[in-house]
Amino acid sequence: MTNEAVQRTQHDGVRTQGREAIPEIARQLRAIDICMLATRGDDGEVHARPMSNNGQVEWDGSSWFFAPADGRLVAEIRQHPEAVATYRADDRFAWVAVSGRAKLVDDAEAKRERWLPELERWFPNAPDDPGVALLRIDATAAQWWTDQGDGQADLK
Amino acid sequence: MTNEAVQRTQHDGVRTQGREAIPEIARQLRAIDICMLATRGDDGEVHARPMSNNGQVEWDGSSWFFAPADGRLVAEIRQHPEAVATYRADDRFAWVAVSGRAKLVDDAEAKRERWLPELERWFPNAPDDPGVALLRIDATAAQWWTDQGDGQADLK
Repeated sequence: MTNEAVQRTQHDGVRTQGREAIPEIARQLRAIDICMLATRGDDGEVHARPMSNNGQVEWDGSSWFFAPADGRLVAEIRQHPEAVATYRADDRFAWVAVSGRAKLVDDAEAKRERWLPELERWFPNAPDDPGVALLRIDATAAQWWTDQGDGQADLK
Repeated sequence: MTNEAVQRTQHDGVRTQGREAIPEIARQLRAIDICMLATRGDDGEVHARPMSNNGQVEWDGSSWFFAPADGRLVAEIRQHPEAVATYRADDRFAWVAVSGRAKLVDDAEAKRERWLPELERWFPNAPDDPGVALLRIDATAAQWWTDQGDGQADLK
């Protein structure tokens, strides 16, 4: 950990790191396919739904998800782009929360590049189906709680 | 399912039930101790943290959590009471999201009644420690995705 990171503001007694924490967060996320993605609705409620991480191998601070273009998730992030994706490890005590801002990426090339055959279970005609939206969430902060310790990172 | 429930609005192709779904949701939650609780921060970010359900045996539409009175969760729900608690089963494909409104319950009797010895790991002097807050989240909606089907309920 860099000296700069050590000097960052503390919250709840845990030292806050910066973007140098991304490889460590990526290591935590590597084995977890499904997260719960929470967003704000227009009715004031906060909603969440399970989302596949699409076998993302090396997390670099941005997460990518496919979603129905006419569904509630896409409608919500158009109004309120702030979201949090939460992850839980299968095999040990490890929880990660990644807060960020979601953006719709309307780019056929990007959709094809990130497409995986197992997504056909949900979207049989994709990636070229206009009913399928691609979302990118750029992390602004992350926090984790594991059997090897807790941490948080400011990723802005 | 009642006829009235069948006639409720549909979202995303899933039939919406009402409060008659509470026993079914309780059955899903029974085996899951830890959820991720997501709330809105003043900075616009959405945050989440793992929270213990305190061995809640029979969920009746309200969830109870203990939290540090001076921590970020309590500060956030004072500003924005809307929250979502997300649950994942250990042993099968089952995810549940319970949206609701959080309220601080400043009642020593209620704290003592809901206290469990294992909470001393986090709060050694509780339940009578003023540094420990008790939160009740009254569900307004729930949604679930399981290997036996998906569903949603309007719990207002």
